[in-house]
Amino acid sequence: MSFVNPNPDLTDSYKKFINEHIIPIELDVLNHGFRKSLPKLQAMRNLAKEQGLFAPHLSKEEGGLGLNLFEFAFISEELGRSPIGHYVFNCQAPDIGNMELMHQFASDALKSTYLTPLQKGEIRSCFAMTEPENPGSNPVHLSTLAIRDGDHFVINGHKWFTSSADGAHFTIVMAVTDPHNPNPYQRASMILVPLDNQGFELVRNIPIMGDAGEDYMSHGEVKFNNCRVPIENLIGNEGEGFALAQERLGPGRIHHCMRWIGICERAFQMMCERAIYRELNPGKPLAGQQTIQNWIAESYASIKASRLMVLDTAMKIQELGAKSAKEDISTIKFYVSNVLMEVLDRAIQVHGALGISDDTVLSFWYRHERGARIYDGPDEVHKSVLARRILKNVGEQMKSH
Amino acid sequence: MSFVNPNPDLTDSYKKFINEHIIPIELDVLNHGFRKSLPKLQAMRNLAKEQGLFAPHLSKEEGGLGLNLFEFAFISEELGRSPIGHYVFNCQAPDIGNMELMHQFASDALKSTYLTPLQKGEIRSCFAMTEPENPGSNPVHLSTLAIRDGDHFVINGHKWFTSSADGAHFTIVMAVTDPHNPNPYQRASMILVPLDNQGFELVRNIPIMGDAGEDYMSHGEVKFNNCRVPIENLIGNEGEGFALAQERLGPGRIHHCMRWIGICERAFQMMCERAIYRELNPGKPLAGQQTIQNWIAESYASIKASRLMVLDTAMKIQELGAKSAKEDISTIKFYVSNVLMEVLDRAIQVHGALGISDDTVLSFWYRHERGARIYDGPDEVHKSVLARRILKNVGEQMKSH
Amino acid sequence: MSFVNPNPDLTDSYKKFINEHIIPIELDVLNHGFRKSLPKLQAMRNLAKEQGLFAPHLSKEEGGLGLNLFEFAFISEELGRSPIGHYVFNCQAPDIGNMELMHQFASDALKSTYLTPLQKGEIRSCFAMTEPENPGSNPVHLSTLAIRDGDHFVINGHKWFTSSADGAHFTIVMAVTDPHNPNPYQRASMILVPLDNQGFELVRNIPIMGDAGEDYMSHGEVKFNNCRVPIENLIGNEGEGFALAQERLGPGRIHHCMRWIGICERAFQMMCERAIYRELNPGKPLAGQQTIQNWIAESYASIKASRLMVLDTAMKIQELGAKSAKEDISTIKFYVSNVLMEVLDRAIQVHGALGISDDTVLSFWYRHERGARIYDGPDEVHKSVLARRILKNVGEQMKSH
Amino acid sequence: MSFVNPNPDLTDSYKKFINEHIIPIELDVLNHGFRKSLPKLQAMRNLAKEQGLFAPHLSKEEGGLGLNLFEFAFISEELGRSPIGHYVFNCQAPDIGNMELMHQFASDALKSTYLTPLQKGEIRSCFAMTEPENPGSNPVHLSTLAIRDGDHFVINGHKWFTSSADGAHFTIVMAVTDPHNPNPYQRASMILVPLDNQGFELVRNIPIMGDAGEDYMSHGEVKFNNCRVPIENLIGNEGEGFALAQERLGPGRIHHCMRWIGICERAFQMMCERAIYRELNPGKPLAGQQTIQNWIAESYASIKASRLMVLDTAMKIQELGAKSAKEDISTIKFYVSNVLMEVLDRAIQVHGALGISDDTVLSFWYRHERGARIYDGPDEVHKSVLARRILKNVGEQMKSH
Repeated sequence: MSFVNPNPDLTDSYKKFINEHIIPIELDVLNHGFRKSLPKLQAMRNLAKEQGLFAPHLSKEEGGLGLNLFEFAFISEELGRSPIGHYVFNCQAPDIGNMELMHQFASDALKSTYLTPLQKGEIRSCFAMTEPENPGSNPVHLSTLAIRDGDHFVINGHKWFTSSADGAHFTIVMAVTDPHNPNPYQRASMILVPLDNQGFELVRNIPIMGDAGEDYMSHGEVKFNNCRVPIENLIGNEGEGFALAQERLGPGRIHHCMRWIGICERAFQMMCERAIYRELNPGKPLAGQQTIQNWIAESYASIKASRLMVLDTAMKIQELGAKSAKEDISTIKFYVSNVLMEVLDRAIQVHGALGISDDTVLSFWYRHERGARIYDGPDEVHKSVLARRILKNVGEQMKSH
Repeated sequence: MSFVNPNPDLTDSYKKFINEHIIPIELDVLNHGFRKSLPKLQAMRNLAKEQGLFAPHLSKEEGGLGLNLFEFAFISEELGRSPIGHYVFNCQAPDIGNMELMHQFASDALKSTYLTPLQKGEIRSCFAMTEPENPGSNPVHLSTLAIRDGDHFVINGHKWFTSSADGAHFTIVMAVTDPHNPNPYQRASMILVPLDNQGFELVRNIPIMGDAGEDYMSHGEVKFNNCRVPIENLIGNEGEGFALAQERLGPGRIHHCMRWIGICERAFQMMCERAIYRELNPGKPLAGQQTIQNWIAESYASIKASRLMVLDTAMKIQELGAKSAKEDISTIKFYVSNVLMEVLDRAIQVHGALGISDDTVLSFWYRHERGARIYDGPDEVHKSVLARRILKNVGEQMKSH
Repeated sequence: MSFVNPNPDLTDSYKKFINEHIIPIELDVLNHGFRKSLPKLQAMRNLAKEQGLFAPHLSKEEGGLGLNLFEFAFISEELGRSPIGHYVFNCQAPDIGNMELMHQFASDALKSTYLTPLQKGEIRSCFAMTEPENPGSNPVHLSTLAIRDGDHFVINGHKWFTSSADGAHFTIVMAVTDPHNPNPYQRASMILVPLDNQGFELVRNIPIMGDAGEDYMSHGEVKFNNCRVPIENLIGNEGEGFALAQERLGPGRIHHCMRWIGICERAFQMMCERAIYRELNPGKPLAGQQTIQNWIAESYASIKASRLMVLDTAMKIQELGAKSAKEDISTIKFYVSNVLMEVLDRAIQVHGALGISDDTVLSFWYRHERGARIYDGPDEVHKSVLARRILKNVGEQMKSH
Repeated sequence: MSFVNPNPDLTDSYKKFINEHIIPIELDVLNHGFRKSLPKLQAMRNLAKEQGLFAPHLSKEEGGLGLNLFEFAFISEELGRSPIGHYVFNCQAPDIGNMELMHQFASDALKSTYLTPLQKGEIRSCFAMTEPENPGSNPVHLSTLAIRDGDHFVINGHKWFTSSADGAHFTIVMAVTDPHNPNPYQRASMILVPLDNQGFELVRNIPIMGDAGEDYMSHGEVKFNNCRVPIENLIGNEGEGFALAQERLGPGRIHHCMRWIGICERAFQMMCERAIYRELNPGKPLAGQQTIQNWIAESYASIKASRLMVLDTAMKIQELGAKSAKEDISTIKFYVSNVLMEVLDRAIQVHGALGISDDTVLSFWYRHERGARIYDGPDEVHKSVLARRILKNVGEQMKSH
């Protein structure tokens, strides 16, 4: 049938792992601090390695399972059912994006020093792009400068929402290296900066929705103060920053979408279970309420729609490359993020007071995924981009008739 | 890729036919009476036959193209782009449903007398099920009786929304033959009644949204007044009416959904074209308005979601039968009908005053497809049915843990 | 209490009249032609006069009841419960708008010749503004020209959606008299044209949603072909067309809103009654379904919100003039028209197949009020206008701090 | 005009106070702990007393301003613009509800010991009703028991969402005193329990949306373990618990609604200001984006609708008592809470990444007001209650015709 999962048994192994090992510890990790939980999480990673499930997205040579993007989509949905799922298997954002980027564009030297331990899960990384003073939706609007000084870049700038900076080993920073280039898309470059480099400063973990987080689960505000790094730390060529960002963000967006479907699935399951066990009156469970039934049916439909569109996009990226799937990626980015928030909202409503407490995982997602409609391009930008592309095509058809 | 259209060239032939021959005459047919247009429509049917495009859903032996349901979905979308598309190719409801039903369950005698000319487009048919006094959403609630009298049934009853009764050659009527059967699902039978039979009465074409219509484009209120037909006119066996209705309505629903996607596509195209050519001020087309862009992007996403879900369901019916696709069919029935109304509503709004006039095809669909959320089971029933099925499954999983 | 109806007994008289005399004949009028119904409608008007209820909006000297706008709002809601309510009491659009306009701005000669018989209900009128080639949302974009030739204007132009032109005695036309005025808002004038004037042509009643209508219930496409009228036919001064249109359209919009609340009330009542008498199973009425209950509760809330906002706006216009209520009028225009469509849509869904038939009044409104979100400024324009005004105010506050 | 604010100057005084004294400290209080901020807040309370603004809802004899509910609505909107506004003026929930309740129903002894210091802001209180094991939407479903033992009650039970228990001086607990009463509405009573009473246990401040809070800003899980209190601690009479809860919750709900309008106003103001100062490109502020304009216009309309409905309800309670305004209260409870969440969601989206950070007050409300659609009766319950009441009325009208 249609979008057949090519690895149903493997998917089941992940599902079982998540159900048996991850879900039982997730609230503990979320509510009592990520750093304190690192040993527990490392134990999980070891178990994942033992079971041959670690890093499914990497090639077998790199220690992974060699799944392509379409195959990975089915696994990612399973992992997404817990907020710590991807982390345990070392395929979490932003590291997975950095792995993809460096795999394609980093020098061998950078690969052996940084990529290899990253793939093994020995270190973590981050990606510094968004700036507080400039709208993230306009990627050529950057103030961070990297000025050549001999065989070094001297970087100065201010970034925020540098996710997982706290405790990371290095960042890749997007900085303007050629501010006077007439083509604004060729002004910036991507440069790798070790976080123990002089001049790098983690200002704070930004409190997001009441929670600054820590370690992997945080979003940093960072500064580069005369931060010097050798020119060998360039990823790709000078001036290619914007082009690489496109390469990185397209797949990055579908990775989010795959994960969101996992969240939807879990919230949906919790909503159904709650509807069954919660009684309004003895013998009268919530499940008999038509409003609840409507939410279940409508959520089922929109999750199914989301999954099919994500799989369709993954297949297209797989076969034709991310560039030809640009419109598909914009479509799922705004569609699935809105389905996600809607399903979470309904699941919370079905749980009543329990739903807003931290006694379930729903409140974590409700808070921390509100950003889904903002990061990597807000809904409004993706819609306009998509519509203008469609209108351009229709306009050309009209002219040719 | 994913849901690859197995017959892209054939699909293009249909697209071309619709664009070149059907769309140019559709407003004339809609606005000036269907009966008056019959010669013109017959000419189109002849052309379709000449081009080898007639009756794509029938086997080659029956004079068709032998497409399976999944293949037909792609064609049906093309035909759906005009309100007269399916009619011209003789795959219009309710006839296509009757063809499917009789193909499987009618006796050879009934087949040669009724089915063969129906397949050839020489006669039309209708299907009398819904009763004004009983909720259509509850199919075991029927008052029409067919009492055995020797080797005849004597039928008495009152039906409405018997689509296309005006000018049809026969109807299949759902009537209670065994009112005292303890199993309410075994009380009714399906019986073929020629419309020139004594006792059959077409009371009126029901005015729907300001338009009673005529001939094929009408919805009849009919009566059976001591209407005698031979028992050989039974379709299937006595008491199987409800089971056959399920067989007939499942695929019937997906046929509607396929057609609705064609309507969505056309309305979407019209909305885009209007946005391009209509100027608010000289040089400032509607296309530059962000509200319009939002509608285009959101419509694009939900039409794409609809198409993928319909194709997924067609594939499932194809491979596993309509019974296993019951939930999928309920899902697309309410999901796609709502997308349809939303897309039509936006297309009208983009057209302004022109959109509510009959100078475009949009107003026809706006009026005549409002029923889409009602006929063949209203949204509310499909949602409840789907949710209860999901909850039952979840409940069973919960017990087994 | 709050928005107390100052004339509760009078309101009851109208309610009773509508229930006893108007609702019983409305379907007959709607389904069998307005022109044929004129004698019946005239009888109703006579009865209204006998009961002292005719023309509630006019001063006592003009033969009315002397109600101010706020008082009239309560009456208008009652009349709005039937599509022929306002007509019977001679306070229907577009005549009521023309009466208000001429009362303020027409010369005594025009008043005695045209306004007086209009107020008495002896003749009807129309208003020709929108042009097929120019977006109605941009009122300074007009192609119709009125060139001075001696003591006459020679008018040439093409208009549509000239409501009720068929059978009207005169129109007021918006035409450009000073095309080169640097201020685009001072180019047009309003001129009264008797419809039997040479050069006036009613091209057609535009088919709207399947129904061209006739007489009062129609929307004309009209042409002015070298149509000569004396300069005395000017309403107000030359160049004041745009200013007068603002005067006319502001109150015109609130009249629509008042009427829409009446439609909402009727549809709401029908929805409730249907929910009570329609049974899904014996003894299980629709009223017990939670989905229906949700629709009723949500409709109740938004109708109440609509009514309060309309009354608040009427009071403001009453006390401070239409100009100071500009934002309030934009607000109710888009808010109430959307509530209207939503309530009608739900009422239809609750009625099932009956709801889309013409056996109730719902289908008439569903078709003919779809224009509510378009005419007199589409939603999108009112929203942008309102938002820009708010943002301007906030921007000024920000600067002053 | 309509709902004229009877005390515009007084309202301005509150507005000024909030702008000048409260908003500048609110983020500090929210982000750095309520208990640590108590001295700062006490200073604010002293200032409020100095300015004669303290406790506007209390009579002048009780040290307040003697405003009635309708008058208070205008003040409450101003206070609601900051999460600490009501607290500073000692009119915060749950204390204000307890003041109203005790004012009407407590004995003189309880009044002098507990009510007077509460009114003066010397102590705080809480209200223990909801139980984790029983649905809050069904108020007769209670497990907490208060058994008479001589001249004491011995209370045992488990409650949660006992807001502000941490640091409170006493609670009023809803407990079953007559479990076998055939009328379930007469089984419970309200009893005052000092929190230093033996047997009272604050189990924890429930983490809500990532934040357990503390002191006033917290929601307690509490236990009563053989907690003995004298029978004189009864509020009202034995068995009147349910009736008193109705008395307490009706006004309690409108107090929430009034406050929510203040939140909406603030979020709306922030959304507008952000749209003005945030540029997409130099010279191209967000304010020019039509999507943002739509949100502003739609938010303006629904906030205005909310305010009018709340004022209308306050007036009705004022004039006819809370009982006759039951339907109005249900209406605003679900309507305004949904407007609130929608406005907050849009304001966050307009703020982008900043909106999900704790650098503005929006994220606090987004998290802590998600409960608005749940506490004091979830949307679904209010809708069903309202609809059933409407349907009952319509049914009775239908019978009488």
